[in-house]
Amino acid sequence: MDCIFCSIIKGEIPCHKIYEDERVLAFLDISNDVMGHTLVVPKTHVSDMHECSNEEFLYVLEKAKTLVGHFIKLGFDGANIVINCKPAAGQEVGHLHVHVIPRKKGDGAKLTMQPASEKFELCEIAKKLEVKD
Amino acid sequence: MDCIFCSIIKGEIPCHKIYEDERVLAFLDISNDVMGHTLVVPKTHVSDMHECSNEEFLYVLEKAKTLVGHFIKLGFDGANIVINCKPAAGQEVGHLHVHVIPRKKGDGAKLTMQPASEKFELCEIAKKLEVKD
Repeated sequence: MDCIFCSIIKGEIPCHKIYEDERVLAFLDISNDVMGHTLVVPKTHVSDMHECSNEEFLYVLEKAKTLVGHFIKLGFDGANIVINCKPAAGQEVGHLHVHVIPRKKGDGAKLTMQPASEKFELCEIAKKLEVKD
Repeated sequence: MDCIFCSIIKGEIPCHKIYEDERVLAFLDISNDVMGHTLVVPKTHVSDMHECSNEEFLYVLEKAKTLVGHFIKLGFDGANIVINCKPAAGQEVGHLHVHVIPRKKGDGAKLTMQPASEKFELCEIAKKLEVKD
């Protein structure tokens, strides 16, 4: 297995650690696009949030929420949480990671969704996608 | 109180419902930027993820994860999860909402973070932001 996040967790590749406990590691994203952009990853390899157990996923999310509180306590004004699930959604490393991006007013950063090429009618979409059971 | 999501939950404003249970409502985002872009909101008003209890937050996230599985079962190839916490992070409605955006290969959509204007050195950031306790 050749997973860069597993190598970071094992200490084979260095990282800028923000938080660690027995189940997760949080470290700075090397993109450095926004000050403090952090990735929270479970120490046990799992490819993405869809493949992850609910219990494990919610543990990682609880830690992400704690980090948001930590950043706000340090003076940040908010945060973005982003999870890209599978390559079609832009997931670049096949090991579940939750982006926690602390934000300051006027930091110049902006999270945007470039719209899809096809357009659909909301009523039709809702009919197709509604959970029936 | 003048909260558009509370009005939707009360049925005063219509929505395109995707899922509902006693604690959350999931409905299509009116932006319609990506087919199936859904918002999952707790029925009890809470302004954002930082103000929300862990228990309530994790319930909403568990439902978001279930929706990702539902969308993948319907033929989608992945999904993005986005939470904007507070106006500095682009939160536009002051009622916690989790974006669940189903994705298809080659759908033309793209989630991007425009970098912040200031640049910092990762070692310095890590020293400032690491959780010490």
